Amino acid sequence: MREVAVLGVGQTKFGELWDRSFREIGIEAGLQALVDAKLSSAELDGLFLGNMASGTLINQEHIAPLILDYAGLARRHLSSVRIEGGGASGSLALHQGYLAVASGLYDYVVVGGAEKLTDVPDAEATQITSSTADHEWEAVFGATLPALWALVARRHMHLYGTTREQLAQVAVHDHLMGSKNPNAHFRNKLSLEQVLGAGPIAEPLGVLDCAPFSDGAAAVVLGPLETARRHTDTPIRLAASQVACDSMALQHRKEITTLEATSAAAHRAFQQAHRTPQDVRVAEIHDAYTISALVSLEDLGFVEKGRAGPEFANGQFSGGGPLTVNPSGGLKAQGRPFGAVGVAQAVEIVRQLRGEAKDRQVSGASLGLTHDVGGTGATVVVHLLERAN
Amino acid sequence: MREVAVLGVGQTKFGELWDRSFREIGIEAGLQALVDAKLSSAELDGLFLGNMASGTLINQEHIAPLILDYAGLARRHLSSVRIEGGGASGSLALHQGYLAVASGLYDYVVVGGAEKLTDVPDAEATQITSSTADHEWEAVFGATLPALWALVARRHMHLYGTTREQLAQVAVHDHLMGSKNPNAHFRNKLSLEQVLGAGPIAEPLGVLDCAPFSDGAAAVVLGPLETARRHTDTPIRLAASQVACDSMALQHRKEITTLEATSAAAHRAFQQAHRTPQDVRVAEIHDAYTISALVSLEDLGFVEKGRAGPEFANGQFSGGGPLTVNPSGGLKAQGRPFGAVGVAQAVEIVRQLRGEAKDRQVSGASLGLTHDVGGTGATVVVHLLERAN
Repeated sequence: MREVAVLGVGQTKFGELWDRSFREIGIEAGLQALVDAKLSSAELDGLFLGNMASGTLINQEHIAPLILDYAGLARRHLSSVRIEGGGASGSLALHQGYLAVASGLYDYVVVGGAEKLTDVPDAEATQITSSTADHEWEAVFGATLPALWALVARRHMHLYGTTREQLAQVAVHDHLMGSKNPNAHFRNKLSLEQVLGAGPIAEPLGVLDCAPFSDGAAAVVLGPLETARRHTDTPIRLAASQVACDSMALQHRKEITTLEATSAAAHRAFQQAHRTPQDVRVAEIHDAYTISALVSLEDLGFVEKGRAGPEFANGQFSGGGPLTVNPSGGLKAQGRPFGAVGVAQAVEIVRQLRGEAKDRQVSGASLGLTHDVGGTGATVVVHLLERAN
Repeated sequence: MREVAVLGVGQTKFGELWDRSFREIGIEAGLQALVDAKLSSAELDGLFLGNMASGTLINQEHIAPLILDYAGLARRHLSSVRIEGGGASGSLALHQGYLAVASGLYDYVVVGGAEKLTDVPDAEATQITSSTADHEWEAVFGATLPALWALVARRHMHLYGTTREQLAQVAVHDHLMGSKNPNAHFRNKLSLEQVLGAGPIAEPLGVLDCAPFSDGAAAVVLGPLETARRHTDTPIRLAASQVACDSMALQHRKEITTLEATSAAAHRAFQQAHRTPQDVRVAEIHDAYTISALVSLEDLGFVEKGRAGPEFANGQFSGGGPLTVNPSGGLKAQGRPFGAVGVAQAVEIVRQLRGEAKDRQVSGASLGLTHDVGGTGATVVVHLLERAN
């Protein structure tokens, strides 16, 4: 299998981008990544675009050629494919781009992720995002994503003694990190009291335990590792790309405080890269809800099951230990434009591994991980990225 | 690049399947293909699922793990990815499955395509399918897919003297072929007079010039060619898999009677397989509207530009010449469950190359082609399949 490298990255600001259309943000991120990769569009073979729900959100399906078209690339008749897997759409697109280059049929591709979530009212966006849970067994009865994750939180508290304060610490951490990220949706710091005092969404989760609905786009350029140095002094090798799935409905899982798809994807990824969780210095993990971050850390193998709450609250993952998580601010503070999330995670890890993350640089990072989740864990994608020296 | 073979095929009946859900038809096709490939689900690595618009049609995104789950495969935590490219979603999924096996990261995968179109009223389905055209430049002004293809028909008649009767012959041909296909949505034969006398949809296209909205699913199992004979006596090699894109809106093309994405994808496919259009004996081509079939034959290189009308009417492609098209009945008669179409095309070609197509068998077919179109040609996918001897 041909080795694959990230040659360039690009990202728009995340937030309520009411003055910009889906196609505009998609193009901005893609062109940034091409410029960063010093790649002429004449060398490009295709686009893999992650997006969750453009059909319901902006009345437009078939969006991959749309982005190519409005980027001025229609005349070259490149390949383009849209990938969807709920909130994991972006990293699934990265997986497909990886396979394309690894196979040898494609040389240089752009992997993009984009979502325009704020053109519909919040209630509608909640309903649309809940269509990534099991419609017939969950969503139709009114179970939204935060409600389902609240069940996970309650049970995690019951089984492991995780506290409301430990959950809230995740949001405090994310906003502190996000305050250093110019692309973040939220750059305000939060106190523990603010998180605890915020109105309830689905108890124990309050409004500040939940990632926002954001607009935004992110992109990376992939190419063969063997020619990567033509494009960059710091090629980042995609050391592993793995997808694992699980039952759609939470009620069909053996134990809801473990996302088995996370464990499976992580296990395969570490195997593919011949690495262990202890080798990872920086990780962008799924923290759409504060409880998700704790469960993710455990299932990825970074901490023993049930111990994420106290370890997180101790500052273990905030720069106080060997692993720093979500330096971008994560979904909670950087924002949650569903289809863009997984690609933005890769953008952040690439910047960290290159040493270009400025104020939020994690020192000595040579191996990074991204972890992206669709629904309540029916799709999980894990990537390992490392500096190619 | 590792060589890839089709090891098994499966397909549901196409039609108005009001008594069956999306998940049921998806699973039926997939399990049929696994049985046909003599592959245990324990050997399976992943699912690539083509689907156009489940979010708007059945309020469910994130459908790839849903199908895995309800097929009883959630516990194995396989990979699954949904692919969308309008009407070309199915063949894009085939392309992704091809890349997965070709790369070596996956060994055995199911590629499925499924769509449930008839659970919404026809007017809503028309609007949803029109979201695969350019929403901001076409659909929002009321331009539906048949209206856009009617423009192509008018101009083809103007430039090349194509007649209303020649268009109608495509429908007559498709229904004759479909009458021999037990899975076809329509199995009634049509006379030229019936097609010409049918009510108008977008002139010159009448209701019998347009493929129906159908429910249905199709699936193929892919694996490495080198181990294919463990599973089948007649492995079918995927000799080429190519995607090409073009501008979303018809008005932005140089000439609307040529789908340049078709020419580009076909050119690359013939190059990849070291073959020419003259080598193809059987083809499943895009005939969502009678005009689409004529334009497709020309752009694929099977007949000179402007000559498809008279050649088709002469019976050149109905068993009277070296190439037979749409033995399944095509989208017009076999049916048009958008995301399933491209996979069903591959199923038919595999059956033809294996010599298992019964009443509709094309004799001596060793190389076959599939041609799948999204929107009015913003995405085109061409596959070449051949008997591996």
